[in-house]
Amino acid sequence: MVATEIRVIYGDTDRMGVVYYANYLRYFEAGRNEYLRAAGARYRDVEAECGVMFPVVEANVRYKHPARYDDHVRVETRITELKRASLRFEYRVVRVEDERLLVEGHTVHACIDRDHKPTKLPERIVGLLRAGENLPG
Amino acid sequence: MVATEIRVIYGDTDRMGVVYYANYLRYFEAGRNEYLRAAGARYRDVEAECGVMFPVVEANVRYKHPARYDDHVRVETRITELKRASLRFEYRVVRVEDERLLVEGHTVHACIDRDHKPTKLPERIVGLLRAGENLPG
Amino acid sequence: MVATEIRVIYGDTDRMGVVYYANYLRYFEAGRNEYLRAAGARYRDVEAECGVMFPVVEANVRYKHPARYDDHVRVETRITELKRASLRFEYRVVRVEDERLLVEGHTVHACIDRDHKPTKLPERIVGLLRAGENLPG
Amino acid sequence: MVATEIRVIYGDTDRMGVVYYANYLRYFEAGRNEYLRAAGARYRDVEAECGVMFPVVEANVRYKHPARYDDHVRVETRITELKRASLRFEYRVVRVEDERLLVEGHTVHACIDRDHKPTKLPERIVGLLRAGENLPG
Repeated sequence: MVATEIRVIYGDTDRMGVVYYANYLRYFEAGRNEYLRAAGARYRDVEAECGVMFPVVEANVRYKHPARYDDHVRVETRITELKRASLRFEYRVVRVEDERLLVEGHTVHACIDRDHKPTKLPERIVGLLRAGENLPG
Repeated sequence: MVATEIRVIYGDTDRMGVVYYANYLRYFEAGRNEYLRAAGARYRDVEAECGVMFPVVEANVRYKHPARYDDHVRVETRITELKRASLRFEYRVVRVEDERLLVEGHTVHACIDRDHKPTKLPERIVGLLRAGENLPG
Repeated sequence: MVATEIRVIYGDTDRMGVVYYANYLRYFEAGRNEYLRAAGARYRDVEAECGVMFPVVEANVRYKHPARYDDHVRVETRITELKRASLRFEYRVVRVEDERLLVEGHTVHACIDRDHKPTKLPERIVGLLRAGENLPG
Repeated sequence: MVATEIRVIYGDTDRMGVVYYANYLRYFEAGRNEYLRAAGARYRDVEAECGVMFPVVEANVRYKHPARYDDHVRVETRITELKRASLRFEYRVVRVEDERLLVEGHTVHACIDRDHKPTKLPERIVGLLRAGENLPG
C-alpha cells in the first residue's frame, strides 16, 4: 500500500460544500502515480522507456462520507490484480484527522503499445509491481 | 431517455489526447440535470422546493473508446431504478458523427433531507420521474 | 461576436455556491472554439492543416457577479487584435435570464509551429478571422 | 512568501501535453490556502470565525513556459496589497527540478460579510497578514 496525502481546495468542492464526485477520480490518479513512483515504475518513465500506456477501462467509486474544504485526506492505493495485459488498483480515501473512511473504489487499466494495441505488461514492470505488493509470483 | 449534447473542449482532455477519465462524470451530471429538467423536476427546484438532495453513493464508468477534442458527443440518460429513498441513472456517451458508443456507466443516488438524513423520495417527484420513463407504477 | 451558450453544472460550482473562478477560463475556451468554428477556422483543423497552435500567453478575468448552479449563460467572444504572430480574444459572460454581465476577460495567444517556435499567423486564417470581425485589412 | 509544492497529474494536462491554462488558478488557490494557514489565518477559520469571505474580483495569469505531466512545481505566494476591504496575492509557479519560472500571476479579492456586502478586513486578520509579510503598518 502506498499513501498519498492531499489537501482539499475550494476548486475540488461543489455547492453542496463537499468534494465533487468526479474529483475523487483525480485523487485516485494522484494515488496511482505515487504508487508507481514508490514501486520504481514512475508512470512517465513507463510510457517513455517501455512504450506502453495504461488507459483506464473501468472505474468504480463508492461514496461513504463527504470530504470537505481544507480536509486533509490520505489516498491509500494498492494493486490487487496483475494480469497478462491489465492491472487493477484499489483505493481508499481516508480523512487524516479522524481516520474516517470517506470513499472507496477501484480502476482497471489495459496495457497498450504506441499503436494503441493491447500488449503484455513488460516483464520489468511486473517484477517491480509484484515486489511492491508482495503478490505471489 | 433524454439526450444531452456536449462539445469536447481542450480542458476536458489530457495529454493522451483524449477526454480525461474523471470528466465523463461531469458529462453524466449534465445528462442527469437535463433528464430531470425534461421530466419537469429540475434539480434546482427539487432542492429548493422539496427540500431534498440526491447525493451520489456510487458511480461506475466503463470506457470503451475515447472521446477526443472537439468531438460532438451525446449523453443518453435513463432512470432504471426508483426505490423508496434512492434512484439509479444509467448513461451512454455516444459520438454523434458515427454513433459509436464511447462510454457507459451508472450512478446511484440517495435521497436526503436538509439535515442530511435519508428520507423518502417526494411523491410528486416519483410521479414525474415514473411518467418520464414509463416505469411500472 | 460569436455567442456560445452554457448551462452551469454542479461540477462548475464551489462551496460558496457559485462558479469556481478557474472555470470561467473553461467557458472562455468554449467561446473561443465556437468563434473559430463560426469563422471557418475550426481550431482542430488549424492545428492539423496549418500546423500551427495558439497557446495562451496571458489570461485576465474580472469577476463582476457570480454565476450559479443551473444558470444559463452566454459567452460572447470577439477577436480584438490580430498581429503578425499573436491574437487576442475578449469575452463577456452574460446570464441569459436577465442579461446581467457576470464576467469579462481576455486571452492573448501566440502562434507557434510544430517545433513550438513562434511563427506568423497563416494568411488563410488571418483572412477568415478578419472577415469574421470586419477588422480593417 | 509561502511555498507550496504540487505534483502535476494527468488530470491537470490537456492534449497539448501541458497543464491546461485554467488549472494554474487551482494551483494559485492551493498557494493562497497555504499562505493563509502559515500566517495563522486559515481560510476555513476566517470564514467560520470572522464571518467574512474573500471572493476573487480579478485574476491575471502570464504563461512563460509550460508545466508538464509529473513535473514537481512550487507555487510561491505573496500578499502585495492589504487595503481596507480588499487584498491582493501574487504568485510565481516554478519548476523545482531546474528552478525555471513557468507562470506568474495575481488575484485581487474583496472582503464581504455573510450578507455578501463589502466589509472591512477584520483587524486580527490584517495583523496576522502584515506580520507574515513584514508589510509596513
